[in-house]
Amino acid sequence: MTKLWGGRFSGEMDALMAQYNNSIPFDIRLWDADITGSIAYAHALAKAGIVTVDEADHLTTGLRQIHAEFSTGAFDVKPDDEDIHTAVERRLRELQGDVAGKLHTGRSRNDQVATDMRLYALDAILHLRNLLLELETNLISLATQHIHTAMPGYTHMQRAQPITFAHWCMAYFWAFTRDVDRLSDCARRTAVLPLGAGALAGNPLPIDRVALANELGFAQISQNSLDGVSDRDFVADLLFTCALTGIHISRLAEDLILYSTAEFGFVSFSDAYSTGSSLMPQKKNPDAMELARGKSGRLTGNLMAILTLLKGLPMTYNKDMQEDKEPLFDSIDTLDITLRVVSGALATLRINAERMAAALDPAMLATDVAEYLVRKGVPFRTAHHLSGQAVALSEQRGIPMNKLTMEDWRSISPHFDEIILTVFDFANSIASRDVTGGTSPRAMAEQLDAARCWLHEQMPA
Amino acid sequence: MTKLWGGRFSGEMDALMAQYNNSIPFDIRLWDADITGSIAYAHALAKAGIVTVDEADHLTTGLRQIHAEFSTGAFDVKPDDEDIHTAVERRLRELQGDVAGKLHTGRSRNDQVATDMRLYALDAILHLRNLLLELETNLISLATQHIHTAMPGYTHMQRAQPITFAHWCMAYFWAFTRDVDRLSDCARRTAVLPLGAGALAGNPLPIDRVALANELGFAQISQNSLDGVSDRDFVADLLFTCALTGIHISRLAEDLILYSTAEFGFVSFSDAYSTGSSLMPQKKNPDAMELARGKSGRLTGNLMAILTLLKGLPMTYNKDMQEDKEPLFDSIDTLDITLRVVSGALATLRINAERMAAALDPAMLATDVAEYLVRKGVPFRTAHHLSGQAVALSEQRGIPMNKLTMEDWRSISPHFDEIILTVFDFANSIASRDVTGGTSPRAMAEQLDAARCWLHEQMPA
Amino acid sequence: MTKLWGGRFSGEMDALMAQYNNSIPFDIRLWDADITGSIAYAHALAKAGIVTVDEADHLTTGLRQIHAEFSTGAFDVKPDDEDIHTAVERRLRELQGDVAGKLHTGRSRNDQVATDMRLYALDAILHLRNLLLELETNLISLATQHIHTAMPGYTHMQRAQPITFAHWCMAYFWAFTRDVDRLSDCARRTAVLPLGAGALAGNPLPIDRVALANELGFAQISQNSLDGVSDRDFVADLLFTCALTGIHISRLAEDLILYSTAEFGFVSFSDAYSTGSSLMPQKKNPDAMELARGKSGRLTGNLMAILTLLKGLPMTYNKDMQEDKEPLFDSIDTLDITLRVVSGALATLRINAERMAAALDPAMLATDVAEYLVRKGVPFRTAHHLSGQAVALSEQRGIPMNKLTMEDWRSISPHFDEIILTVFDFANSIASRDVTGGTSPRAMAEQLDAARCWLHEQMPA
Amino acid sequence: MTKLWGGRFSGEMDALMAQYNNSIPFDIRLWDADITGSIAYAHALAKAGIVTVDEADHLTTGLRQIHAEFSTGAFDVKPDDEDIHTAVERRLRELQGDVAGKLHTGRSRNDQVATDMRLYALDAILHLRNLLLELETNLISLATQHIHTAMPGYTHMQRAQPITFAHWCMAYFWAFTRDVDRLSDCARRTAVLPLGAGALAGNPLPIDRVALANELGFAQISQNSLDGVSDRDFVADLLFTCALTGIHISRLAEDLILYSTAEFGFVSFSDAYSTGSSLMPQKKNPDAMELARGKSGRLTGNLMAILTLLKGLPMTYNKDMQEDKEPLFDSIDTLDITLRVVSGALATLRINAERMAAALDPAMLATDVAEYLVRKGVPFRTAHHLSGQAVALSEQRGIPMNKLTMEDWRSISPHFDEIILTVFDFANSIASRDVTGGTSPRAMAEQLDAARCWLHEQMPA
Repeated sequence: MTKLWGGRFSGEMDALMAQYNNSIPFDIRLWDADITGSIAYAHALAKAGIVTVDEADHLTTGLRQIHAEFSTGAFDVKPDDEDIHTAVERRLRELQGDVAGKLHTGRSRNDQVATDMRLYALDAILHLRNLLLELETNLISLATQHIHTAMPGYTHMQRAQPITFAHWCMAYFWAFTRDVDRLSDCARRTAVLPLGAGALAGNPLPIDRVALANELGFAQISQNSLDGVSDRDFVADLLFTCALTGIHISRLAEDLILYSTAEFGFVSFSDAYSTGSSLMPQKKNPDAMELARGKSGRLTGNLMAILTLLKGLPMTYNKDMQEDKEPLFDSIDTLDITLRVVSGALATLRINAERMAAALDPAMLATDVAEYLVRKGVPFRTAHHLSGQAVALSEQRGIPMNKLTMEDWRSISPHFDEIILTVFDFANSIASRDVTGGTSPRAMAEQLDAARCWLHEQMPA
Repeated sequence: MTKLWGGRFSGEMDALMAQYNNSIPFDIRLWDADITGSIAYAHALAKAGIVTVDEADHLTTGLRQIHAEFSTGAFDVKPDDEDIHTAVERRLRELQGDVAGKLHTGRSRNDQVATDMRLYALDAILHLRNLLLELETNLISLATQHIHTAMPGYTHMQRAQPITFAHWCMAYFWAFTRDVDRLSDCARRTAVLPLGAGALAGNPLPIDRVALANELGFAQISQNSLDGVSDRDFVADLLFTCALTGIHISRLAEDLILYSTAEFGFVSFSDAYSTGSSLMPQKKNPDAMELARGKSGRLTGNLMAILTLLKGLPMTYNKDMQEDKEPLFDSIDTLDITLRVVSGALATLRINAERMAAALDPAMLATDVAEYLVRKGVPFRTAHHLSGQAVALSEQRGIPMNKLTMEDWRSISPHFDEIILTVFDFANSIASRDVTGGTSPRAMAEQLDAARCWLHEQMPA
Repeated sequence: MTKLWGGRFSGEMDALMAQYNNSIPFDIRLWDADITGSIAYAHALAKAGIVTVDEADHLTTGLRQIHAEFSTGAFDVKPDDEDIHTAVERRLRELQGDVAGKLHTGRSRNDQVATDMRLYALDAILHLRNLLLELETNLISLATQHIHTAMPGYTHMQRAQPITFAHWCMAYFWAFTRDVDRLSDCARRTAVLPLGAGALAGNPLPIDRVALANELGFAQISQNSLDGVSDRDFVADLLFTCALTGIHISRLAEDLILYSTAEFGFVSFSDAYSTGSSLMPQKKNPDAMELARGKSGRLTGNLMAILTLLKGLPMTYNKDMQEDKEPLFDSIDTLDITLRVVSGALATLRINAERMAAALDPAMLATDVAEYLVRKGVPFRTAHHLSGQAVALSEQRGIPMNKLTMEDWRSISPHFDEIILTVFDFANSIASRDVTGGTSPRAMAEQLDAARCWLHEQMPA
Repeated sequence: MTKLWGGRFSGEMDALMAQYNNSIPFDIRLWDADITGSIAYAHALAKAGIVTVDEADHLTTGLRQIHAEFSTGAFDVKPDDEDIHTAVERRLRELQGDVAGKLHTGRSRNDQVATDMRLYALDAILHLRNLLLELETNLISLATQHIHTAMPGYTHMQRAQPITFAHWCMAYFWAFTRDVDRLSDCARRTAVLPLGAGALAGNPLPIDRVALANELGFAQISQNSLDGVSDRDFVADLLFTCALTGIHISRLAEDLILYSTAEFGFVSFSDAYSTGSSLMPQKKNPDAMELARGKSGRLTGNLMAILTLLKGLPMTYNKDMQEDKEPLFDSIDTLDITLRVVSGALATLRINAERMAAALDPAMLATDVAEYLVRKGVPFRTAHHLSGQAVALSEQRGIPMNKLTMEDWRSISPHFDEIILTVFDFANSIASRDVTGGTSPRAMAEQLDAARCWLHEQMPA
């Protein structure tokens, strides 16, 4: 009688089917959640008078010992342990005898596994959140050092306007703040206790679900037992959050891969985060960033997997839902290591400010030229057009825009006077973008203050 | 000079390329957002002293007239209007002359379109939220009528335990509360103003971004201009929310399609939401529900489209991002009509309580049999096994479980006494699942209260 | 010097980065392909005079020993073995000394891993193909037994027209023939040898690529070395084929899950492919089919992963591509076990012909009524309308359609005469759909012949 | 009686539901396929004696007139035309009277729409194939001009080995050959006629399906009518092919976007395929390529839409399937314009051979250095390590690798002699990669021959 069911069955399960059915190879990582949930449930059964205080003690003592066995790696999975719940209950019977058979009273694996998954997810959310905050701390640190490091800002990968490297760092900082925010949303919707839903119709015993929620750290209890056992929104929420974080990382990685090319040369990675080629001795490759970029594939794939899985499933629990675990675990693991590697790669990144400066091109100040005209009363649209003609003239002449002569400028428009020649100053241009969020050192200091303030608010009291 | 750029260009754009590039066929629906944003920007320019009060008046008067033209369908798109921004500025010049050329001072289409999209999304979120609340109101109404309508609850699509139709209705209610909650999260992250980011580096004029945010109904301003123009998280957030709502609807639809089969016969759809067959005269098909289920495909596809689109894009704005619009518009439209159709179909659904009752099968009370043994002190796991043997015996005999004789019961276990024969009462079973969230009429009344309370809190003050 | 690179590196790789970078935990399954490819390459090097015949012997002897070590589980992975290629070359050096360092001459891991992956995929394709053919054999066998087993055919899940269970079985047969066909396409495009592409620019040695292809069982050699190392179409092709096969299985599973409900009762699964409930003793759940349906999620997710991964990758090899392996392996494994389980479940499926027959409803012959009118010269569209009125009348009366009286029929149209009463014969209706592909026993015999013929053609000579 | 059904219905369809249900807004583009199919079906009915020759004449005459009306834009869609089939049959009745009602005899919209979609897809496949061949012709033409244009080949976006621009062009050529090949597979599986399947059970009339297939250009007839109406593999096949082609284009676009940056400067786009900035006058953006890259999002999204749609659908036709059309049409349209734009952009691309040459760096010949040692008998792995040390030394010295002195070389290994100084010749290095598929001019000529040969074989006889 090792299975949790079977009274009505006469035939044996096919061996291959057993392998197909068994989830222990992957749901074993729910052991901590499963045992924690069972201890709380033993308390609830005692409180409701379903088991005696003595019986509850036997149950929790046994469960704590099983917890210790898992902690130390001593727990031995048996061939008939189809899932973590079966394994724990089987071991409990070995340790404490028949009282083990009382633990499942009123409970089903349907509400049990939903509870386990939520406990696991809540823990993972906290962990990922901390890794994101650490990565963001690194970005602030890097930005703080580079408030005055000028570099080209790009749109369409074309040089657009001068910005600072600090500005670039902080762009990703704010993207990650949204990921942290999404993780908080995930946590809020995950912290709803399904335990007490039974198989689907609700627990028939007078158990105190609110007390269970309190003991297990859930903020609320689910309000509908059918929904309680069939809701996997919290998995989809977290997989989406992981996928979008992965997209952010893919963009950061893309930038750094480009910036570390010989052609850009803005940054170089530490040997600790690079690899070589088995054929080409000179190669030093930004593997960390390429892998980080590539991981967006599996993160997106896992999201797609859960959505496809859930599509069209009838109420309530269907075995299909066992397939919710592996994508969730994989996305958590993927993001876990990716965030740590990206943090490390950023912390050891070398910035080549000279190459950045050398990539600034006077034509990147064409907007400043137009703005100069605007200050003289020319409507912006006209000013834009006149500045564009200056760009065309400099290209035609094959000279940088700041080498155009006063005659050249006057040939374009009489609005131009000698002041135009003073426009071509990158530092001035940077300083002029001084609105909140702009690239000027003052605005950047303001932005860094806001960022530190946000980060401070995220830290646990 | 109808294009917003071109001073540096000598060649003409290829005609096919123009068609490929032009977004006016789909971004025209941003007209209201675009004009509203431009009016606010005109105010900001005046406040900053960039345009005179008179010029600002000319700009806003012109913009209001253009708004009126769009409202009445009188606006005439011209071949060179590559996007909504160009169309509006072109028309503004026709109406107000050269002052139109001042409106774009310090502003780029990059921050403009991001602002437009956010305004549009905020409006759509509110709209979808209202439709969801309406659907939920219908579900409460249906549930209220069916607190005592017993039906089989299913797990694995096998009859599991008796529940009520109210219970089923409310399971979807709570799923939709999570969708509403997600929409709120979307709104919070969308209500961040990018205007003032310029092309990427920040606006060089002393414009008051906070005032702009207030005028346009944004709660915050973006803190980094690079992120301001390149962030499309709000699109991904909304597309995910639409996709998951679509998955919920696909499950609701699946249930109702099954329940409306001849075999189940639990519900039937009004002719108003059914169609016939071009070949088979007798057919009445649940097309509304099938389409609703099928729409989950495009909603998921649109989410995947935006994630694929954003993957690996370098900072900051890239033209790829123009592709963010059609999936967003399509998901909003899809969910708009789907929610309304599903609401209508539910409001006119006929419930066949007799068929539901007839589908209740004594074996669905096997858990109650086990619980009866538990009350006599048998550990649940043993009780489960004994009850399973009774199921097997009844199947072997080819009789319903409640027709087993006392001898039959005793042959299984001496624990069984005459009381066992009273266990087979569906209403009692339902009433016994009385925990919060359970299927009992009392628990359902409690649940409906909680639901009405939640709904009340969602309504605008 | 255990790494295949490193001369130019001074720093050590970060430990976490090493874990992130190392692919040995999953690419170890390429060992057979990798060693086979290396043996062939040793031959090629000898033939080209790059190594002596003696050296080639040393290389191949060592490689064969390593192969034996893997076969017997004796191979010992070392911490510095970053991937399967490194592991094999490291072991080869241990066994044969410095000559091992010659094996990689002109070869890069870029063309090596592409070759390994293709060898692995070709093998997997053959394996999956055989499993599909076995499943199809089971479907033919089931169909052969049920040429006369009448059941309702459904459209929109509404009873539409009588068909046979054989017809249903064979519908899936033909779907799987397309999957087999797609696998053949995959094989054709996979059997293109990249070896000789070097890192990207081509092998500088006069190796005979055509001979290599012949030895390794490739039909062609790649024509462009850049494409050779960066093409992962064969992975995407196979993942798509697996995903679509998974969709077919999800539909088959959905049907069988529905047919095994108490409400339909058309089939029941063997205990060998069912499970019970931990709470509800009476439950017998179609877990095999639910898992099979749910697996479509990960199969689709894996396809999405590879597409997202490849999107926007520059030429040629990028480390991102290391992420091509796990989704491929997972889809192959998933389909492997799923096909075998589904085959087993079908082979042990019990068909309940009585329940199928009982579900036939006279209204399903409404089309036959219309066809009867057509034979009397009534245009089909009119006949369809008149038959629809008869359906409405029978519903209104609450009697089956075949119980309408002659007066009833005449009240609808004078076209009806006594012959109408003979129309209500399910077997006749089935026999009348006699076109190729139709449900009549004759057409089914023809279809089975065609199926067996197709199957025969697939078998290796 | 404008609907094709309705005899049994008493209530009217809800107006919103009608909008939800109606497919005419998008399936109108099936008009040509629909009418062509109907003409063939009229012939089949006549041949089978179901309609007289006269009636068939009336039907085909009417259908041809409707075809003419669509061709000239004169066809007028009526509010009750729920789909293209209804519209055509309604108009046929207006033109030819009651005989129109005979056209649908034995046919259902289920087999009709499947036939229409396949006809449409076959046409689209041919069209896309021609566009791909045109693009490939452009690539050959570009390659032919640049057999001797040296440029850096990249792996991991790091300079790896010198290649030629021709080599780069042809890498994409071969990727597109696989897309063409996949299109052929699509065509083969699409050219299977479902007409004759009826609603699901097969046509009850003695129509000649093979003759129908011949008339309509199908190679085969479907063998199972259930599968005939429920198979949408051909849509999935085509959407996958479009998605993967889109991924190829995204990679081509990525390369060209990078190569057109100021930092690389390898290519520049014609003004005809570029746009400017509304704010920054100097900008010239590679919009064509960015849009082409971004379109991979919707192409992938459409594939995911169809897979999600089909997942778990029961046999046979379900209304969900109406959702197969829009993603198919969108992917076809997207690829149509994208292929033409990319062809145009390539045809007008300017190549900057000087910048390419300037980007060649002596360290890219480090592999050649190792090969030089190999020729002297040093095992490759050792040679690789020694060459890596030379790279490290040159970096340490801050001098290019070819500026190392003989003392430097000897300090690394006594194997180096004066010949080493001759290794640093890019043209020689390129010429040495002379295996089939390699970058040498000879191998490239061979490759171009193979490409032209392939292209020639694709052309219709």
